[in-house]
Amino acid sequence: MPALTSLQELIEALRALPGVGPRSAQRIAYHLLQHDRSAATRLGEALLHASGEVRHCARCNTFTEVEVCETCQDPERDPSLLCVVETPADQLMVEQTLTFRGLYFVLMGRLSPLDGIGPKEIHFEQLIRRISDGVVKEVILATNFTNEGEATAHYLAQMLKARGLKASRLARGVPVGGELEYVDAGTIARAVLDRHTL
Amino acid sequence: MPALTSLQELIEALRALPGVGPRSAQRIAYHLLQHDRSAATRLGEALLHASGEVRHCARCNTFTEVEVCETCQDPERDPSLLCVVETPADQLMVEQTLTFRGLYFVLMGRLSPLDGIGPKEIHFEQLIRRISDGVVKEVILATNFTNEGEATAHYLAQMLKARGLKASRLARGVPVGGELEYVDAGTIARAVLDRHTL
Ligand SMILES: [Zn+2]
Ligand SMILES: [Zn+2]
Repeated sequence: MPALTSLQELIEALRALPGVGPRSAQRIAYHLLQHDRSAATRLGEALLHASGEVRHCARCNTFTEVEVCETCQDPERDPSLLCVVETPADQLMVEQTLTFRGLYFVLMGRLSPLDGIGPKEIHFEQLIRRISDGVVKEVILATNFTNEGEATAHYLAQMLKARGLKASRLARGVPVGGELEYVDAGTIARAVLDRHTL
Repeated sequence: MPALTSLQELIEALRALPGVGPRSAQRIAYHLLQHDRSAATRLGEALLHASGEVRHCARCNTFTEVEVCETCQDPERDPSLLCVVETPADQLMVEQTLTFRGLYFVLMGRLSPLDGIGPKEIHFEQLIRRISDGVVKEVILATNFTNEGEATAHYLAQMLKARGLKASRLARGVPVGGELEYVDAGTIARAVLDRHTL
């Protein structure tokens, strides 16, 4: 088989994007090369740069380019409150409510045994170390209200209680089955205020 | 405003992909950085390589990395027959029918005055030069059977006849309103055989 041309290689590589099959990979490649070559170059550089630079915050596990992220370094925040979310996007949603001034831990996922995502994959050990700093007093579990998010919250709550830590869950202002990322800030704000001890 | 982090820059750059808004750009960035960093690197390199290397064939205008593409250099092909298509994907569809052994010209678009796509944008001058080589005897217009593709074929046919060249159009085996890329090879094969003089 001859080596791939750079066009064929681009089409192959585009299939790594979520939801992109062979046909749409071809369309995207043609579009970029025909109409938007400077955008293609910019995207290529951004991918290489981010792949090389972005890592996980040593404290909260979110994406960052430094050892400890800006949020974790903020002296204005209450370090006794820790909010556990599934993704950086969820963290951003909670931030936008302006009702929470504690710190975060980002699981970068949720428990999903069927997909092979267990405690290790959601950085359980790191979370344990994080909450064992003697400063964290309450952990707010803000995983999604999906089946998997609820199971994750339940699992974490058991584990926190076993260690004598207070665990709370966002109130059911968030629609059952809903994902935080798609809920309006007002609803999330109420859910933070109404959180209940588990 | 502070400089964008490499994650923010990646999210911005991903919006150049067709159909990708801010929310899905964020999802794609998180997905690549969390689960598929080697694919992200590969895609970044492919984008830079293709942006630098891919150009248009001097004869047929398709994407290629050399001055004249492989198809145009193929001595087995009948140079008196020229098939005009909108995109490289359409050319591939015609090739797959195995019914056409002539050469191609790829417009890289279609006439669409409302979108500002006129004769210049579909490389009209280059097509004129191509068909004026004294070898091309018949031009098969294989633009799509959409309104814009039909208008493009009509426009090209007028121009070809004015120059004393034979123009033909794929037969209506292709469903009206259909796009070549989504039609089965058998239908296209029949349409090539049944092409009619314009
Ligand atoms: Zn952090
Ligand atoms: Zn060519």
